[in-house]
Amino acid sequence: MRRAMAEAEVGDDVYDEDPTVRVLQDRVADLFGKEAALFCPTGSMANVLALGSLVGPGQEVLCEARAHVLRAELGAHGALTGLTSRTWSHPRGQLDLAAIEDMYAPDMGPFFVRTTAVAVENTHNFAGGTVVPVEDLRALRAWADSVGIGVHTDGARIWNAHVATGTPLKEYGTLTDSLAVCLSKGLGAPVGSLMVGSRDEVEEARVRRKRLGGGMRQVGILAAAGLHALDHHVERLAEDHEHARLLAEACGVDPAGVETNLVVVDVPDAVDVVRRAADAGVRVGAVGPQRVRLLTHLDVSRADAESAASILAGVLGATA
Amino acid sequence: MRRAMAEAEVGDDVYDEDPTVRVLQDRVADLFGKEAALFCPTGSMANVLALGSLVGPGQEVLCEARAHVLRAELGAHGALTGLTSRTWSHPRGQLDLAAIEDMYAPDMGPFFVRTTAVAVENTHNFAGGTVVPVEDLRALRAWADSVGIGVHTDGARIWNAHVATGTPLKEYGTLTDSLAVCLSKGLGAPVGSLMVGSRDEVEEARVRRKRLGGGMRQVGILAAAGLHALDHHVERLAEDHEHARLLAEACGVDPAGVETNLVVVDVPDAVDVVRRAADAGVRVGAVGPQRVRLLTHLDVSRADAESAASILAGVLGATA
Amino acid sequence: MRRAMAEAEVGDDVYDEDPTVRVLQDRVADLFGKEAALFCPTGSMANVLALGSLVGPGQEVLCEARAHVLRAELGAHGALTGLTSRTWSHPRGQLDLAAIEDMYAPDMGPFFVRTTAVAVENTHNFAGGTVVPVEDLRALRAWADSVGIGVHTDGARIWNAHVATGTPLKEYGTLTDSLAVCLSKGLGAPVGSLMVGSRDEVEEARVRRKRLGGGMRQVGILAAAGLHALDHHVERLAEDHEHARLLAEACGVDPAGVETNLVVVDVPDAVDVVRRAADAGVRVGAVGPQRVRLLTHLDVSRADAESAASILAGVLGATA
Amino acid sequence: MRRAMAEAEVGDDVYDEDPTVRVLQDRVADLFGKEAALFCPTGSMANVLALGSLVGPGQEVLCEARAHVLRAELGAHGALTGLTSRTWSHPRGQLDLAAIEDMYAPDMGPFFVRTTAVAVENTHNFAGGTVVPVEDLRALRAWADSVGIGVHTDGARIWNAHVATGTPLKEYGTLTDSLAVCLSKGLGAPVGSLMVGSRDEVEEARVRRKRLGGGMRQVGILAAAGLHALDHHVERLAEDHEHARLLAEACGVDPAGVETNLVVVDVPDAVDVVRRAADAGVRVGAVGPQRVRLLTHLDVSRADAESAASILAGVLGATA
Repeated sequence: MRRAMAEAEVGDDVYDEDPTVRVLQDRVADLFGKEAALFCPTGSMANVLALGSLVGPGQEVLCEARAHVLRAELGAHGALTGLTSRTWSHPRGQLDLAAIEDMYAPDMGPFFVRTTAVAVENTHNFAGGTVVPVEDLRALRAWADSVGIGVHTDGARIWNAHVATGTPLKEYGTLTDSLAVCLSKGLGAPVGSLMVGSRDEVEEARVRRKRLGGGMRQVGILAAAGLHALDHHVERLAEDHEHARLLAEACGVDPAGVETNLVVVDVPDAVDVVRRAADAGVRVGAVGPQRVRLLTHLDVSRADAESAASILAGVLGATA
Repeated sequence: MRRAMAEAEVGDDVYDEDPTVRVLQDRVADLFGKEAALFCPTGSMANVLALGSLVGPGQEVLCEARAHVLRAELGAHGALTGLTSRTWSHPRGQLDLAAIEDMYAPDMGPFFVRTTAVAVENTHNFAGGTVVPVEDLRALRAWADSVGIGVHTDGARIWNAHVATGTPLKEYGTLTDSLAVCLSKGLGAPVGSLMVGSRDEVEEARVRRKRLGGGMRQVGILAAAGLHALDHHVERLAEDHEHARLLAEACGVDPAGVETNLVVVDVPDAVDVVRRAADAGVRVGAVGPQRVRLLTHLDVSRADAESAASILAGVLGATA
Repeated sequence: MRRAMAEAEVGDDVYDEDPTVRVLQDRVADLFGKEAALFCPTGSMANVLALGSLVGPGQEVLCEARAHVLRAELGAHGALTGLTSRTWSHPRGQLDLAAIEDMYAPDMGPFFVRTTAVAVENTHNFAGGTVVPVEDLRALRAWADSVGIGVHTDGARIWNAHVATGTPLKEYGTLTDSLAVCLSKGLGAPVGSLMVGSRDEVEEARVRRKRLGGGMRQVGILAAAGLHALDHHVERLAEDHEHARLLAEACGVDPAGVETNLVVVDVPDAVDVVRRAADAGVRVGAVGPQRVRLLTHLDVSRADAESAASILAGVLGATA
Repeated sequence: MRRAMAEAEVGDDVYDEDPTVRVLQDRVADLFGKEAALFCPTGSMANVLALGSLVGPGQEVLCEARAHVLRAELGAHGALTGLTSRTWSHPRGQLDLAAIEDMYAPDMGPFFVRTTAVAVENTHNFAGGTVVPVEDLRALRAWADSVGIGVHTDGARIWNAHVATGTPLKEYGTLTDSLAVCLSKGLGAPVGSLMVGSRDEVEEARVRRKRLGGGMRQVGILAAAGLHALDHHVERLAEDHEHARLLAEACGVDPAGVETNLVVVDVPDAVDVVRRAADAGVRVGAVGPQRVRLLTHLDVSRADAESAASILAGVLGATA
């Protein structure tokens, strides 16, 4: 990947003139059967740009209560786009179409907030890397079309959903109006996410990207890493999923519930577990006062995973 | 009321120098046992100022899914304050402390959105004027204190809750950090709401009120109407509640579920019912594609209510 | 005026159903030869709504450096509308067409901020109630039309300009795309300003007014005061101007420079002068560390003005 | 540079854990004698973060009328920070302390916008790469300290000012509270700017950077390019300046006015010149309807500059 980066051809991407970025954008758009894509410094910005295309000030998006867009993007959507958010809750971060239909606010005139999009997160980060079943996505798409609203997918980990279920990326693409997808995290590129959608949305988002300070210049170097990741690091995510199940077992979590590369473990004191694991050489993250998250990725080999499993079993045994 | 307005003594309220406004503010603050209050042109602005004191950009408020602050204030809270909102759903617009505790996001460091307030709406407009039980408010207050977050009450109709249940306004005041209360609507003043809270919150809100374009000058005239309403129009709300039950019965709605002055009626086609009722001389509002809302107020006498009940029975019979 | 208010017919102005407000809006629109007008709680909100129609996020307005919209509206235009402002400076707050043409930024593509409006303040508050010469307004209008941008007039005191110069209000109207005009201040109504412009701008501003918390309900009472003020208090502004010249003379300011009802006096220590004048029973305002402002209005009779002149002469003599 | 990037050690920079980024940030902070620095995807974001530390909503920044922060950052400062801007004009983009003192708005209470910072651009992009004289910066610093406000430097091209004048970077640092500096453009790194300031400002900006979508992960690769650029590409800017003077001469611009690497040429029709030059193989940019900008950089050798000079002389001769 570093060699690909070292040899990348570059240009000024603010003006859409970086050839490597253009190749990457076209390729990602094509993977999902969409018209266009836009390189962004982060997944947060890709989400902000995409949701901002579907939901304006005085309009609302519906999403699951632990969605990354509401929990981990520092309020960017309200603060920068001026949208309203309302939520349903699902223990596995999935869709609840009955709840969505119940909350849905149609156009009742200009003095009421109306729903213009539903946001899906697939896989769902804070629910533990769970996959949103494709039949639920199909039902949502059909209903959204029937009432005339949009669907956005926070697909930072859509690659994991694809590998875990075999659902083609193009099918995921047809079931959503826009996506944010990430080249770092599981795919292993150092930096970069893309907003994916229609030609018009992407052109308009290019201007808003500049306002947010995300219009970078010679980003072909980062795009080259992304292209390398798409070539070499998608199918191997299956290994990460295998390693995650291995960790789950060691931590007393039912591996059947570990669908991809994340494992959520309930513990008496998350801060304590994080510290003790770190002391023993394993890095885990607190995602709640009594909840830690384990994640596997490109740089965690089978041997690493086995060693981490054994260490974590010890840490958790001691705190139990 | 008009005479009180005609005789009001006034001053420049931007600089807190309108004597009638000061009397009104002190009186309302005192009614709820709070330090201070601030006159606002609308209840929306009072809510924006109060929630903005408790919840900053990158922080969140939790509220019921049909809350007026999210549904009927045109996205002001996200757009003007930059806050994030998440919601629970309750068929009668009430608290669900288990859901709130489950959604609650503690301080996990500066990169996560944390909950800093819960907003209550009492009575709840879009749930049909339902009263939030005071024991639920006490449980919320205790829990909020235990985790160190605020409580805001959208109390546009708090007067109705007070009259319907006998719960003292001061008790409602002790169970919340801030309130927005309305002098028009049920109380019958032409214009005006107040934000109620601590001295510091109110002083800071006075500046933000100016930025929003709500710093009016000689508002004593409006304040005089508000004082008159507090003197003469609170206890009589019991009549509105009686009239609402009368309407409910005529419309086939169980009057036991009509707690205050609003009646929500499910109909096959709200737009059609609104039009037919209007043709017959009764004004009702659509609050959903298949839902209309009836409301009683100061200017609806018992005779008016009886006449409206008879007309609506006819309209609904014809559309059933 | 209070009687007119007491007898006003009212309705719900959020939905444009208050008959007295509609009469006032139509009348004000007609005075300036414009299609429509919108009642607002304050002049700040009228300015925010009007400028927001002409200048979007990522676009800019040019105005004089001491303009009320930049100095005294608490940053509302940037914070709420997201516009950019650039300024020219003129000692009497007037237009400088050469400077404006020099600063003007045409459309250079979506990555540059372009000028979409010039804002004029007439009369100019912080420059001392100075009138913008109508020939300058004509030249601005011609140039703005030639490059295709808008003109907004902060006309809180346009009535004074009209009375001082005899320029018809309709002519002022033809030379601008939108205005904000004020019924309080010189005209003596307790509360209320109007945004004036095209039908489309006003309809769109009605929605934004609601978001800002300015969509009041039974405002006919305030509108009635405004109608009374338009009937009775416009032509009498000539007396205020006469009284202001009288004050100027007493304070050693050349009355030839006092064009309307404001007098700006340079003093060694504004805070001290404000305090000493107040002690002697005359209220003046500090508008800079070494500058105070005197203003005459409806409730300042000739005798009041003469008495104030004599008191201020003493205060200023003592501090000189 | 590409080799340095290929070998960079990386970590998660959102949590300040990327070792190469930390080295770069410390080094840049140290170059300017400041406490801390923060890596940003663009100079626009660095400016937004830095100005946002000095100027809040309802406060204002003063800057020159053609400043990049107002002209070329798409209104980000008003839209994202909610600040107000006012401007002075200078033909060479320089300071005008008399104008600044005249515009300066001290704290007159919470209802007036007060000045909290002056922004300097050095070198000044749209004025043609002009250097702000260090004695002017010293006078500004002394005055700003005397009234208690901040100074921000948009130093995207501060390296050019340093090389052209010999003024040490540390002196530039002592004369400002914050800077935004750029590693791409003249220094030749592919991506990256830094906000430079106090420890507190930088820690608070790190959170706002995340909200804007600028909190990237393994950015050490980009930081490595920046470190390489600082090692190898600063002193060589003198060659760019020499090449710019050579271009100026060919275009009939007085080379004495070309202080760094930019040349501004007035032409009858900028779009036409841009197109004709491009056809002949030289890329120039339109910065106004009748103004083009030439710039020299790392990848423009002396031979390239000579060839471009000859081509441009032909293009301009033909259009004259």
